[in-house]
Amino acid sequence: MNKVYVVGVGPGGAEFMTVQARAALEQADVLCGYTTYIELVRGLYPDKETCATPMRQELERCRQALETARSGKAVALVCSGDAGIYGMAGPLLELAPEFPEVEVEIVPGVTAALSGAALLGAPLGHDFCVVSLSDLLTPWEVIEKRLECAALGDFSLCIYNPASNKRADYLQRACDILLRYKSPETACGWVRNIGREGQERKILTLARLREERADMFTTVFVGSSTTRETGGRVVTPRGYRL
Amino acid sequence: MNKVYVVGVGPGGAEFMTVQARAALEQADVLCGYTTYIELVRGLYPDKETCATPMRQELERCRQALETARSGKAVALVCSGDAGIYGMAGPLLELAPEFPEVEVEIVPGVTAALSGAALLGAPLGHDFCVVSLSDLLTPWEVIEKRLECAALGDFSLCIYNPASNKRADYLQRACDILLRYKSPETACGWVRNIGREGQERKILTLARLREERADMFTTVFVGSSTTRETGGRVVTPRGYRL
Repeated sequence: MNKVYVVGVGPGGAEFMTVQARAALEQADVLCGYTTYIELVRGLYPDKETCATPMRQELERCRQALETARSGKAVALVCSGDAGIYGMAGPLLELAPEFPEVEVEIVPGVTAALSGAALLGAPLGHDFCVVSLSDLLTPWEVIEKRLECAALGDFSLCIYNPASNKRADYLQRACDILLRYKSPETACGWVRNIGREGQERKILTLARLREERADMFTTVFVGSSTTRETGGRVVTPRGYRL
Repeated sequence: MNKVYVVGVGPGGAEFMTVQARAALEQADVLCGYTTYIELVRGLYPDKETCATPMRQELERCRQALETARSGKAVALVCSGDAGIYGMAGPLLELAPEFPEVEVEIVPGVTAALSGAALLGAPLGHDFCVVSLSDLLTPWEVIEKRLECAALGDFSLCIYNPASNKRADYLQRACDILLRYKSPETACGWVRNIGREGQERKILTLARLREERADMFTTVFVGSSTTRETGGRVVTPRGYRL
């Protein structure tokens, strides 16, 4: 079968996968993906052929998956979280027209905005934005503009890739932009290692979020003006009259 | 067990549920929720007690779930899509402090932004916003401001509740706002009845989206300036150099 499934497997353990994702992995002859994500699923299918590629080789990974499928195999390209949200579905679909004999199916999964929000409460209970602070592929000016627009629109905000070794102060820079428009008392939170060993969460104000150190396994949530802490959770009300 | 699980069951059929969601439904003594969603899961657990409430009785539904849990039962409050995104996690957590003996666990699920995007390709492959056009609980001016900010930030946009019988022209009004800032050629799409009988999808420009008739089972996607149609799919590139 000349087919690539691009599969979102959720945040970590097998319990976060959908039945559809499990079925796609089951049907695949070969499991492809970033090394860390292949480790997550290899245990479920110890006998399957795997093909792991290191970070930053996203296009090579997609091309390899399509070439393997063209040779007559069913390939699952494994993504953490969702297949599409900052995932491999985009670049794979951009390359796919070069491989007209290969069928592509996108299998969605629980992205960190959802799994992280569930750990904190319901910070994304009303309109929200998702912004990545990674400037590897996006000019910082574009990121800054989006943070401003998220604040001006009074959206709840979920921040992916808030920091890395080379970008240690990016979360602080983002908070400084948001603090031009939002109260320092805005309810915020972060989660780290969602659904994996070492899972942590913290609820705090925007002023205190600015002082936190995030890493690449952290997802950050910044509330709208209506977001509140209640009973140890962060909630953005939809507007029901209690 | 005095516990409420707020469970996101994904868009429709059982194959979109996570293993964690299935386990929560399994452990529940009582399944609560909006009538339509209870129908979706009742078939899986024909012997469980159910408690269905009609639309618009969200707070009553949450209070009933908490009261049932306080009486010593494990309750699953079933939400379509995710538990938190316009779901019951928010109002339930707002009421929960009145029920200190009840434990609450939020179980995330695949929301329509993800399941709908997968059917279209990867329209949310970069930073994005999610906005509901329902003005039942949100003033229209706030919705309009958020649409403007989403356009000014050049986000991809996913629109929930684009129309209902009483709000037949809301999608058109939203498109008119977006067209002040965005090209009429912007790549867009919609999906209807995701994961259910009668599933449909359509890819079209923003100018043509303005002429479409949506209903409450439709989810709409509006691209950023970089979103493209390729090979019959909508893709918002992350920025990899092909």
